[in-house]
Amino acid sequence: MSPRLRHLTTLEHLPRISIERLLDRAEALRDACAHGTRKLDVLAGRTVLNLFFEPSTRTRTSFELAARRLGADVINFDLGFSSTSKGEELYDTLHTLEAMHLDAIIVRHKEAGTPDALVRHAMSGVSVVNAGDGHRAHPTQGLLDVLTIRQHRPDFENLVVVICGDIKHSRVARSDIHALTVMGAKEIRLCGPAGLMPAADEFPHCRYYNDFDAAIEGADVSIMLRLQKERMAIVDLPDEAAYFNHYGLDTRRLARAAKGCLVMHPGPLNRGIEIASEVADGAQSRILEQVGNGVFVRMAVLCEVLAR
Amino acid sequence: MSPRLRHLTTLEHLPRISIERLLDRAEALRDACAHGTRKLDVLAGRTVLNLFFEPSTRTRTSFELAARRLGADVINFDLGFSSTSKGEELYDTLHTLEAMHLDAIIVRHKEAGTPDALVRHAMSGVSVVNAGDGHRAHPTQGLLDVLTIRQHRPDFENLVVVICGDIKHSRVARSDIHALTVMGAKEIRLCGPAGLMPAADEFPHCRYYNDFDAAIEGADVSIMLRLQKERMAIVDLPDEAAYFNHYGLDTRRLARAAKGCLVMHPGPLNRGIEIASEVADGAQSRILEQVGNGVFVRMAVLCEVLAR
Amino acid sequence: MSPRLRHLTTLEHLPRISIERLLDRAEALRDACAHGTRKLDVLAGRTVLNLFFEPSTRTRTSFELAARRLGADVINFDLGFSSTSKGEELYDTLHTLEAMHLDAIIVRHKEAGTPDALVRHAMSGVSVVNAGDGHRAHPTQGLLDVLTIRQHRPDFENLVVVICGDIKHSRVARSDIHALTVMGAKEIRLCGPAGLMPAADEFPHCRYYNDFDAAIEGADVSIMLRLQKERMAIVDLPDEAAYFNHYGLDTRRLARAAKGCLVMHPGPLNRGIEIASEVADGAQSRILEQVGNGVFVRMAVLCEVLAR
Repeated sequence: MSPRLRHLTTLEHLPRISIERLLDRAEALRDACAHGTRKLDVLAGRTVLNLFFEPSTRTRTSFELAARRLGADVINFDLGFSSTSKGEELYDTLHTLEAMHLDAIIVRHKEAGTPDALVRHAMSGVSVVNAGDGHRAHPTQGLLDVLTIRQHRPDFENLVVVICGDIKHSRVARSDIHALTVMGAKEIRLCGPAGLMPAADEFPHCRYYNDFDAAIEGADVSIMLRLQKERMAIVDLPDEAAYFNHYGLDTRRLARAAKGCLVMHPGPLNRGIEIASEVADGAQSRILEQVGNGVFVRMAVLCEVLAR
Repeated sequence: MSPRLRHLTTLEHLPRISIERLLDRAEALRDACAHGTRKLDVLAGRTVLNLFFEPSTRTRTSFELAARRLGADVINFDLGFSSTSKGEELYDTLHTLEAMHLDAIIVRHKEAGTPDALVRHAMSGVSVVNAGDGHRAHPTQGLLDVLTIRQHRPDFENLVVVICGDIKHSRVARSDIHALTVMGAKEIRLCGPAGLMPAADEFPHCRYYNDFDAAIEGADVSIMLRLQKERMAIVDLPDEAAYFNHYGLDTRRLARAAKGCLVMHPGPLNRGIEIASEVADGAQSRILEQVGNGVFVRMAVLCEVLAR
Repeated sequence: MSPRLRHLTTLEHLPRISIERLLDRAEALRDACAHGTRKLDVLAGRTVLNLFFEPSTRTRTSFELAARRLGADVINFDLGFSSTSKGEELYDTLHTLEAMHLDAIIVRHKEAGTPDALVRHAMSGVSVVNAGDGHRAHPTQGLLDVLTIRQHRPDFENLVVVICGDIKHSRVARSDIHALTVMGAKEIRLCGPAGLMPAADEFPHCRYYNDFDAAIEGADVSIMLRLQKERMAIVDLPDEAAYFNHYGLDTRRLARAAKGCLVMHPGPLNRGIEIASEVADGAQSRILEQVGNGVFVRMAVLCEVLAR
């Protein structure tokens, strides 16, 4: 049995058994809720704090719901998002929060590595959970994505996944690649305009594409990334319509994928830019299942790191 | 028996029996609290989310207190008020929240009809409660106002009510008119400067006035509306003192009303503009009773829409 | 036995027995938590509201944790901090909140005396707790500071305390002076640049210094205040380095104090301005103990004012 996780900052280097334990627990929690359990008390008396240095209403709300459904108290430590706390100032904030006897800190920060820095500087038994750090990792998103895939395609060794969009700046893509790699996916294809692709040596086990028609050919899963509109400048394309024409997922392009290809997106959607409404709202879309799984995965992570 | 409400977006077209059931329940909850019950658990395990696209600390707090006193969890989904989410973007937010298994969404939005649009687009069993949409409706305000009146003047068929101020842009006025009409008020008088009055055909059963002295003559209830100061430009009056002189409620003018006329205001007050302090703080003022009733009415509404 | 406090707006004029009762209770709560009690229900069903007209994530979070650990509900009444509510507008807000049946209001306001004004204008049994008003008082900080001192140096009658920095504009300093005076400290020394010292007659029983080397000589406790950087203009010193050179606490200067002198700071720290990192993080630092005691002191205060 793999040791219990005390923190979750990235999925890299996690053994498959640890990821599967989290996914199994998320499903058990989902089943309990489906059978009418509205609220558990496994974390009663524990306090979880949201420490968000970047705004994210959706992810914060998902963590808040997860913590409350387990009976924990939740504190939103609102920094007004003007804060760029780092270095000593960041560690003083950490130590102040630890001195208040919090049990877990959910952290989002624009600088990669911040959650690991908090783990290294923590003086007490507080658990740190990464809710997104720079372009590096968003591990609960990676977990909810492989959970969603597993519910439909449990045979990862036969799975071809394409991730399309701004891979270079995407912590979602990185955590998806980590999770899919650990789960033994057959093939991971990365696709996007040249300016938005990662360095060739970052993911040597993945296949790189600039042509989405070629990349989606025969894929079992298509994960579309949100295009940050300010990144359009990097893309050698005249406008959003041209981006959609080359890298958007529409019905015609989805037909090139394997039959029943799962359509996924971390949200929020830019309809008509990276995905057509007909596909986002279509029968193959798993986008809302991802959201639902997100709460259960976060419940599982909080149970894991806060177990006594 | 009228069917249970699943949503509350407006009081228009509601049968009197539905409104009275809500008022009766609000009073029962008030009595329970008066006898020492601090917190009920009828909504334990349920989650209510405040989705406010316009800031409103008072109304949001009243709903939050109502939900918590019933044992529900409350999530404030803070959009920073820069958001003007509508159309597909709004429905994507709705569907995301539904996928997180929320039980009720309390919504305030500057566009009339948004709560009904959410009801139409909802895919799950989530309940929608309108906390104010544009100039159209603020149904819990309408309910708390008729509850306050009923506690003092239960004989609506003999009741003369005057509503004074910016009727045209007031969702409070509209919901009050809807509620008073359903409850069978004898006479509803609307009074304000010409530029702030609704179209003549919007409320054909009400009497329109521009002269407040005439309008308040013999009234049993006087509901004063808050003047948005940016609306002074529409009013053909030189300044706030002139507005008060023509449309403010002071002791002299209150003496023209029926004996014991109830003085009401949805708050927050512009003292010296639409109401004199001597009247706002006087023996006939029901303004703070309105606030107290607001929490109980919102508890009643949440019980109604979230009953299993 | 001294009467129970209904409000806490300042420590001035409080009898020593009242302060000691709060400290004793804070320690009892700390012991209960150390023995595994995660959450008490002594305030179950009670509602505490944070009414902060100045931002303070740390203090607000400390009060929120304190209230929740006692089982109370907490409402954050967020005023956006653009608000400068005062006079009638402030009292209308108070009366609105009272009408919603809140049990306690935790208030921070930039104007001195605001919490007392709320107490005078309160119409119901709501309790008011001051979380900082202008430069005047921050009583829970004063309590947590004397609690921290008492844990290490219970013999106040032999205690020499130096408070260094911007005394003139510091509510922390004032509440510390009040608490130390009541507890019978032997000597209270105030030290800072001339422009940041209080009037000579404000604290006639304290000793005033401009030379920190002289002030710290033989001190048992050194409380360093945060320098608001905008106050540098008042100080007749060329820059922050010069301020640190004259008024910063470093190892060399700490050696002039009594053996084992306690190093304290209300946070957040300006490292290298009023305190050297080697001292802030050193063996004599009690800074994080202060933070931990802050939660227990606030629990004790809420228990006191909300006891039935």
